[in-house]
Amino acid sequence: MLSYDKSPPHPPQDFVRVRYEELAEFVRSVFLRLGVPGDDARVVAENLVTADLRGIESHGVARLRRYVDGIRKGAVKVRPNVRIISEGPSFALVDGDSGLGQVVGSFSMRLAIRKAKESGIGFVTVRMSNHYGIAGYYAMMALEQDMVGVSMTNSRPLVAHTGALGKWLGTNPIAVAAPTVNPPPFVLDMATSVAPIGKMEEYSRLGRRVPMGWGIDAEGKPCDDPNVIMREGALLPLGGLGEVFGGHKGYGLAVMVEIFTSVLSGAAMLREVGQTEAPEPANVGHFFMAIDVARFMPVEEFKRRMEKLRETLKKAPLHPEFERIWMHGEKSYLTSLRRMEEGIPIHKRVMEEMRTIASEVGVEFPWGP
Amino acid sequence: MLSYDKSPPHPPQDFVRVRYEELAEFVRSVFLRLGVPGDDARVVAENLVTADLRGIESHGVARLRRYVDGIRKGAVKVRPNVRIISEGPSFALVDGDSGLGQVVGSFSMRLAIRKAKESGIGFVTVRMSNHYGIAGYYAMMALEQDMVGVSMTNSRPLVAHTGALGKWLGTNPIAVAAPTVNPPPFVLDMATSVAPIGKMEEYSRLGRRVPMGWGIDAEGKPCDDPNVIMREGALLPLGGLGEVFGGHKGYGLAVMVEIFTSVLSGAAMLREVGQTEAPEPANVGHFFMAIDVARFMPVEEFKRRMEKLRETLKKAPLHPEFERIWMHGEKSYLTSLRRMEEGIPIHKRVMEEMRTIASEVGVEFPWGP
Repeated sequence: MLSYDKSPPHPPQDFVRVRYEELAEFVRSVFLRLGVPGDDARVVAENLVTADLRGIESHGVARLRRYVDGIRKGAVKVRPNVRIISEGPSFALVDGDSGLGQVVGSFSMRLAIRKAKESGIGFVTVRMSNHYGIAGYYAMMALEQDMVGVSMTNSRPLVAHTGALGKWLGTNPIAVAAPTVNPPPFVLDMATSVAPIGKMEEYSRLGRRVPMGWGIDAEGKPCDDPNVIMREGALLPLGGLGEVFGGHKGYGLAVMVEIFTSVLSGAAMLREVGQTEAPEPANVGHFFMAIDVARFMPVEEFKRRMEKLRETLKKAPLHPEFERIWMHGEKSYLTSLRRMEEGIPIHKRVMEEMRTIASEVGVEFPWGP
Repeated sequence: MLSYDKSPPHPPQDFVRVRYEELAEFVRSVFLRLGVPGDDARVVAENLVTADLRGIESHGVARLRRYVDGIRKGAVKVRPNVRIISEGPSFALVDGDSGLGQVVGSFSMRLAIRKAKESGIGFVTVRMSNHYGIAGYYAMMALEQDMVGVSMTNSRPLVAHTGALGKWLGTNPIAVAAPTVNPPPFVLDMATSVAPIGKMEEYSRLGRRVPMGWGIDAEGKPCDDPNVIMREGALLPLGGLGEVFGGHKGYGLAVMVEIFTSVLSGAAMLREVGQTEAPEPANVGHFFMAIDVARFMPVEEFKRRMEKLRETLKKAPLHPEFERIWMHGEKSYLTSLRRMEEGIPIHKRVMEEMRTIASEVGVEFPWGP
């Protein structure tokens, strides 16, 4: 099996390796101590550490500070009254009561899966939630039930839509997971912007310039300084600036996500979406869908068809500038196998922050003095 | 009201103006004569002429020849036995029995709407169909019922996925429509490639080069010759060549469309997808979804929220290189208003082809000798 890390630690000496189980246990203990019930603390920990395991550090324990602050400021409730406002055999509208996004998200995706089990399809839209981590986590929950899973969320404004200046739309990700005969399953987990905000933060941390075309400055000019893009400029939608290369399509996909997650649910939209660590409720909106494959064809047949789709695409003649053809979810899967074995690389600054959090909330920091 | 044409006739002297009603009546008469029942002929005509009305000529009457040939060669059935293979309160699997894509598509979207009316959600996947025209047509069918509509289709291979050479995926469009207080409604109708094949054909017809980044040649090099791209090269997925600007995301969206339209339905996938005018069934796959807004909030509230979303985005500060901020569906709507008034510009070559078709099938050609 190919050994691969989609986001190798760089430079390596700035990172320490931490075992998956230890990291998850530490994160769980922090949330437990903050008053989050046991099952919920486990879900948040699993969601965050899964991101680190799959090489999506921007959505992993590096965000722990924001969640902790959100809880401490009272904007994020540790014991929310997550309620179903309206439902039918195949749909539901959920109010997350400002709970942790992972808690509200897992509840809602489980609900979608239960409805799909009963009626073939589960369609759930959610308001009054918070940042829910990686979108792919929820889509992947459907896989264990041999279902196709879909997950979307809106998010704080970062993207300038076609023709506009400034930040208006979130990076509004779309995730889709589908089961296959052999691992890894298909897992698409994509921001609808050219590049996710996590990449911007990573380049900023490394003092590097980003490729021209990822973002614009305050005047709308293409910009390669990640700090300028994040501070006074904006990210660009998938397809880039203008319409020539389809920027209006990325913009349209972001609006589609807004429709399913916020317009339909009553959540905050566009610039109304708050931040986890702010004093007011963020009122983030999510969308989840589960499709019970068995209602359409035998599960094994579906999986074989997925396998055939993958094999056909992967065996296409290779473009001379590429080393291999990837299927979505494969890089993250290989990264998780490797990190399960070698430990997850955590940046020393993130380790220090976790140490501070540990002492603030009063839990043991298990990685030495 | 702004007078706008998203695809003005160029050069104008190569086009004649034809009234919407006359064009629709002519197309209907052709299909009637070929043995298509009255209601079905009306639907196909409406679908094709709506494309011309909205400025998407590549999917309008310019395709009439292919549909006619498909029927004459026997690959497209004029009286298909469109059947529901499996269904529940909120889903269905439909077999189109090689009927016209518009007939199978309209049947299936009506079914999705009926299920949404009964249960909140209608989710319908379709196999054994044919080219169904513009995806937006079916999504828009939901609007009259105050529903959100979704439509996708797979299509013949034209796109090279990330890392590959040659044509593998279709331009696999995604369409989403949502009702608003004031016209036009939100209508996203996008190919998951950088540019649709229709643009390539248009540039080829005009003898123009396409922007570098829309397609590659047989060796994978960026190419601006639309004929080379179409003949031996390939279109690129939204996001372009490689992963730097998100080409793997356009590739992922195209695979998502394949999953919903073909993997789940049993339709042909990738290079198995046939052409309308070939002698064998094309076995195209579609996907339709309808969401009954009223199950989530009062319809008027949803529409007001859509209006607020649009107003907020349109009133953002304008980028200095743009004249206005558009919402999806607006250009097509304005184009249709103008063309309803001034007539639809039809290229003289398309007029000649329609004249030939008229004499072949034996219907009157109403636009003079």
